[in-house]
Amino acid sequence: MSTNRELRLGMIGGGPGAFIGAVHRLAAEMDRAFELTAGAFSSDADKSAETGQELGLDPKRVYSNWEVMLEKEASLPQETRIHAVSIVTPNHLHHPPAIAAMRAGFHVICDKPMTTSSELALEMESVANETGKIFALTHNYTGYPMVREACELVQGGAIGTVRKAYAEYLQGWLTDPLETTGQKQAEWRTDPSRSGPGGALGDIGTHAFNLLEHVIGKPVTRLAGRVETFVEGRELDDDAMVLVEMENGATGSIFCSQVCAGRENGLRLRIYGTEGGIEWDQEHPNDLLVHRKESPSEVRRTGNAYLSPASQKLGRIPSGHPEGYLEGFANLYRGFAAAIQREDITSGDFPTAADGVRGVRFIEAVLQSASENGKWVRF
Amino acid sequence: MSTNRELRLGMIGGGPGAFIGAVHRLAAEMDRAFELTAGAFSSDADKSAETGQELGLDPKRVYSNWEVMLEKEASLPQETRIHAVSIVTPNHLHHPPAIAAMRAGFHVICDKPMTTSSELALEMESVANETGKIFALTHNYTGYPMVREACELVQGGAIGTVRKAYAEYLQGWLTDPLETTGQKQAEWRTDPSRSGPGGALGDIGTHAFNLLEHVIGKPVTRLAGRVETFVEGRELDDDAMVLVEMENGATGSIFCSQVCAGRENGLRLRIYGTEGGIEWDQEHPNDLLVHRKESPSEVRRTGNAYLSPASQKLGRIPSGHPEGYLEGFANLYRGFAAAIQREDITSGDFPTAADGVRGVRFIEAVLQSASENGKWVRF
Amino acid sequence: MSTNRELRLGMIGGGPGAFIGAVHRLAAEMDRAFELTAGAFSSDADKSAETGQELGLDPKRVYSNWEVMLEKEASLPQETRIHAVSIVTPNHLHHPPAIAAMRAGFHVICDKPMTTSSELALEMESVANETGKIFALTHNYTGYPMVREACELVQGGAIGTVRKAYAEYLQGWLTDPLETTGQKQAEWRTDPSRSGPGGALGDIGTHAFNLLEHVIGKPVTRLAGRVETFVEGRELDDDAMVLVEMENGATGSIFCSQVCAGRENGLRLRIYGTEGGIEWDQEHPNDLLVHRKESPSEVRRTGNAYLSPASQKLGRIPSGHPEGYLEGFANLYRGFAAAIQREDITSGDFPTAADGVRGVRFIEAVLQSASENGKWVRF
Amino acid sequence: MSTNRELRLGMIGGGPGAFIGAVHRLAAEMDRAFELTAGAFSSDADKSAETGQELGLDPKRVYSNWEVMLEKEASLPQETRIHAVSIVTPNHLHHPPAIAAMRAGFHVICDKPMTTSSELALEMESVANETGKIFALTHNYTGYPMVREACELVQGGAIGTVRKAYAEYLQGWLTDPLETTGQKQAEWRTDPSRSGPGGALGDIGTHAFNLLEHVIGKPVTRLAGRVETFVEGRELDDDAMVLVEMENGATGSIFCSQVCAGRENGLRLRIYGTEGGIEWDQEHPNDLLVHRKESPSEVRRTGNAYLSPASQKLGRIPSGHPEGYLEGFANLYRGFAAAIQREDITSGDFPTAADGVRGVRFIEAVLQSASENGKWVRF
Repeated sequence: MSTNRELRLGMIGGGPGAFIGAVHRLAAEMDRAFELTAGAFSSDADKSAETGQELGLDPKRVYSNWEVMLEKEASLPQETRIHAVSIVTPNHLHHPPAIAAMRAGFHVICDKPMTTSSELALEMESVANETGKIFALTHNYTGYPMVREACELVQGGAIGTVRKAYAEYLQGWLTDPLETTGQKQAEWRTDPSRSGPGGALGDIGTHAFNLLEHVIGKPVTRLAGRVETFVEGRELDDDAMVLVEMENGATGSIFCSQVCAGRENGLRLRIYGTEGGIEWDQEHPNDLLVHRKESPSEVRRTGNAYLSPASQKLGRIPSGHPEGYLEGFANLYRGFAAAIQREDITSGDFPTAADGVRGVRFIEAVLQSASENGKWVRF
Repeated sequence: MSTNRELRLGMIGGGPGAFIGAVHRLAAEMDRAFELTAGAFSSDADKSAETGQELGLDPKRVYSNWEVMLEKEASLPQETRIHAVSIVTPNHLHHPPAIAAMRAGFHVICDKPMTTSSELALEMESVANETGKIFALTHNYTGYPMVREACELVQGGAIGTVRKAYAEYLQGWLTDPLETTGQKQAEWRTDPSRSGPGGALGDIGTHAFNLLEHVIGKPVTRLAGRVETFVEGRELDDDAMVLVEMENGATGSIFCSQVCAGRENGLRLRIYGTEGGIEWDQEHPNDLLVHRKESPSEVRRTGNAYLSPASQKLGRIPSGHPEGYLEGFANLYRGFAAAIQREDITSGDFPTAADGVRGVRFIEAVLQSASENGKWVRF
Repeated sequence: MSTNRELRLGMIGGGPGAFIGAVHRLAAEMDRAFELTAGAFSSDADKSAETGQELGLDPKRVYSNWEVMLEKEASLPQETRIHAVSIVTPNHLHHPPAIAAMRAGFHVICDKPMTTSSELALEMESVANETGKIFALTHNYTGYPMVREACELVQGGAIGTVRKAYAEYLQGWLTDPLETTGQKQAEWRTDPSRSGPGGALGDIGTHAFNLLEHVIGKPVTRLAGRVETFVEGRELDDDAMVLVEMENGATGSIFCSQVCAGRENGLRLRIYGTEGGIEWDQEHPNDLLVHRKESPSEVRRTGNAYLSPASQKLGRIPSGHPEGYLEGFANLYRGFAAAIQREDITSGDFPTAADGVRGVRFIEAVLQSASENGKWVRF
Repeated sequence: MSTNRELRLGMIGGGPGAFIGAVHRLAAEMDRAFELTAGAFSSDADKSAETGQELGLDPKRVYSNWEVMLEKEASLPQETRIHAVSIVTPNHLHHPPAIAAMRAGFHVICDKPMTTSSELALEMESVANETGKIFALTHNYTGYPMVREACELVQGGAIGTVRKAYAEYLQGWLTDPLETTGQKQAEWRTDPSRSGPGGALGDIGTHAFNLLEHVIGKPVTRLAGRVETFVEGRELDDDAMVLVEMENGATGSIFCSQVCAGRENGLRLRIYGTEGGIEWDQEHPNDLLVHRKESPSEVRRTGNAYLSPASQKLGRIPSGHPEGYLEGFANLYRGFAAAIQREDITSGDFPTAADGVRGVRFIEAVLQSASENGKWVRF
């Protein structure tokens, strides 16, 4: 076996300039869940090869397009070939490789929105059912521990019968026509041929919508909407406001915008019922505010023993360290790795032995001062 | 080659029940920086083997103790043997393997505090210098993008000459004598034979101290301290208050406590100078508050183009997504991997094709309503 | 002259159990703007007299109904009679006394919403114009310094051309049928004969609406709305969602609800334009968040010299003391007054001489310790 | 009787340019607790008269110095003369008038710190005891509802036995030598002849100290301190750091600074015990964070029914309106009064009839749209 991880992953998309491909790779390899083993990173064979090389993949497993990848990987012996593919192409290129991959025997994890029309989406669902392959969609916000906690609380009745649900996802990065400057992310997201009919609606509105249904555990049954394109010349919506009705008479809203200048990633969910409410804000994702009628509001935080088991299971770090901690830690390892590769001890990207000495002296100096009634000591 | 990553890592410590070992492994493998290839995870050979197996390591690279690991790994051919070791044992067991590893030709990344006395620390520093091996210490908070931004601002003069610096690290998890209940983390951290002379002081006080010096870029020169043990029977301090003087007449404080009931991980740094100040709170690590005399305060956030290049380099996710995002994403991959291994499509740990269909329908329904003047449509 | 304040105020409404009447009285007398001199506090003569007595008014100036008050006051000599009336009755009783008061020569300050139909409202406006009397409506949120700052910024072009405006006012106090328990505030607010046709819409939706237009300085031109009554048996809406269009193509929303269990007084305004945005939240009213494209966000705070003159004019307290400070201060005066009236020195409602001694000793003890190199001193 | 309020107040100090005098006047007259009736506002007779005139006082009750005021007022008939004096002079001028006023039969409310030495303070306390007059000291932060709530919780045992108490009061307004620019507030606060021996220590350190003892209900028994003067040429401290011991072995700190550039009024109190903790921040005074071991943290907010009766008694506004609300309201009354005095209807400082009409139309338009299935209506 060429790797010590049990599951091997192939990636479709995620070549130079891609954003979400890199995120998928980091996420896939965290927890040793997967080893990225193969890839068709771009429809341009050179770019695909370039990305494969950067990632240190075996060049034989880096393919010039996804059709070749699926064919070749399927022909490899079972103990070598990939188990699953990750699809991180623009929206219009989710459907063909997803269908083909499942038919070729691979599980699929696919970026959202699933595809560009509900006909195609239903076909993808059918193929998943028919082939028995697992199809996962990366509505990543459902993976936050405090979103899981919200599910447990709301669906467990902690806030009573739901009456109101407000979801919103406000960004500002498309306030100007960024797509005309050559910025790749902006280009495909505002291009109906690659994104499908929804602009902000597809890119972030679907997140807000999914989150709302996911936490409540009940479907939206009726809606009324309005979409806007504020930036002149843009072909897709950059703003939408939707009012919704849900089962049991609850009502609410789903708002999304990419022209709220200054907002970064304002995904917020607020749900109120007959007994209380919950509020979650993705910009401070480790806090869940829980309202209860006639009692003080509570702040629930990731990683605490009072959380539901389902939520605790999603945390990697006990004792209340915030998620995000891992990346800080990983930055030191990244600096350390770079220093090793450069054979350069003094990079400044991580604390060194000198810092360590200083820390130990600090302990000693404090204990000395403390033992002499708080005397000031040179250090 | 048995892996497609360029650097191979061996771990010392991090067996069953360890907390920081798992964090190091996640951090090391993020960004494909390292591949965990070998380990002596416990001084108990069975436990070491058990951990190695859980991690999917080649059993031949899992050793019964670190002495054996260093000897065996050093004898492997260069293209196979590990490049570096990660030391995640209790404090008193940092020094021996670190010295031995460097002498055996391995780079070392070591948990903090470096060791239990400054004599030993200085020896470690000497061996690092003498062998030319890289020694990195995981004061992980220096790896946060907004801490880096704070360094750039403070050392770049944005707040003028520093006058005041307040660092604190307040936790509550040792409010009760948790060490008497068999909790491993509490046990060794309150045991002077394993932690050295500092309790809270060594465990978290050194973080606050390191952060303060790291951001200001100048040393503490004199201090006066007081340590307390609030929990009866505990052998080490669980609280300390230290006043400090720095170069140029700045003064400040370093407080740490593990008996502030209800505080999780309250690492906070506040620095004020002649022109402004900065405030950072590890519980909301993506915000950096910047005060300026006579202007409104600013909130700087991870991932924005207005940040210093040094800070931007540390972010993995453009466009203002919060760090923490990765773990949420990884949770979906984890669920997907588990489903593949169980061959169970319906795990509930990730969105499926049905969710995808629903999202696409949402886009279509909104566009339909919008095109009919906001009419309510069934959905 | 019977008082040393220049303007005398008469109040209509505000008897036992009223909430907003007391607020008007406190507000009117702050800054010595007015002296409450007369009142028809209830349509029940006994209750009116009772309230007048509690307030220490001259019994001759306390009337059994507002008609009598207007007649009698109008007949008093100019140097004695009231200058203005404050109308704090339920909504359906704003129109008659307002009209009558202006016709009788008095200025009027009236609670919102103005009245129960736009016909009546227009008549009130006409009478104000015709009589030349001043008519003020207490959309009190326009009186906050940071709302004024928001006006200055938005109308001064600081955020460019406005595109999006989201206003919301979410409360939870009517989650249950409180009006059936005898709670007076809930009773009249849910009674169409006293509130008019709008429930939450009239009570708080008009605040959100007014705030939005007030800050932008341009009118809403078209809207689409939906109202709900969640609590069974309630006769008026307790929830509304409104989408709006404004001049120049800006769009947005006005949401109000009184069934968001756990929300207290969630009045929030967020406006985004081509160059930036502003966000204000009445629960933390001294902060104004200002977003700017490509720069860090700013937090503007009440009372700072960098604010616009219009905003500074509204603050009473220099140097950044939060509004709210006054009430804390007033509590000590209230306690002091109560102690005087009871001739009881030891009330515990204010710091005494013993506290003062202790504070002075604190200064001395610190200076003593500091002068002896930080020595601990008994105290 | 010349006023309808029961208690008459005379003020000593608070002339042109004073800050705290205006605050005392607003606070004293709120709730109709007192009527400001007399004053010796400055040692300069012309300035005293000028302030009296601005305030609309009877010129006969405005005096050229406090000695005259006390003498003359004492000779007035009981139904006319003042009941109490408010002393708002610089610190060194608290003692003489306080002593004299109590001996002359008047109750006293006095700004903090009480005076400039503990000898003088003790004398003031003795005179209060001897004369039976009430002496109140305006440590105004004890008047906040959530500080009262904190007292109830801490002293009622909700957080167990107190172990740690951190109080701090950080400001930045004296970062530069403001006292050399003619700014009156800075001048006397940095002048030892007027402030006494403590600078920041007396001005704000005593607030932090008082708050800490007030909430815990137990005295500091030992302390060790350090004071600093960062601004060259300043004669008093502008920064202090104090470590404290309290009864029962609790320890903590009291920090104050006026050179933390960018900090406005950072008074913060944090107390931790064996069962939980509380945190209060004067910049968001209506929130009290309550930690409990093993449960989510709570946010208690002013004005809710779950608060202790002692805390509820201090709020003026039911249903969760934030304190600060009153000032916003009062701004409208102030604008209304100004308009009356100018006979100018169109001031822009308050909403008018036109705004009222608009609000009523808003209700009607929404109801119309709602009744037609959310149709967009012109407005």
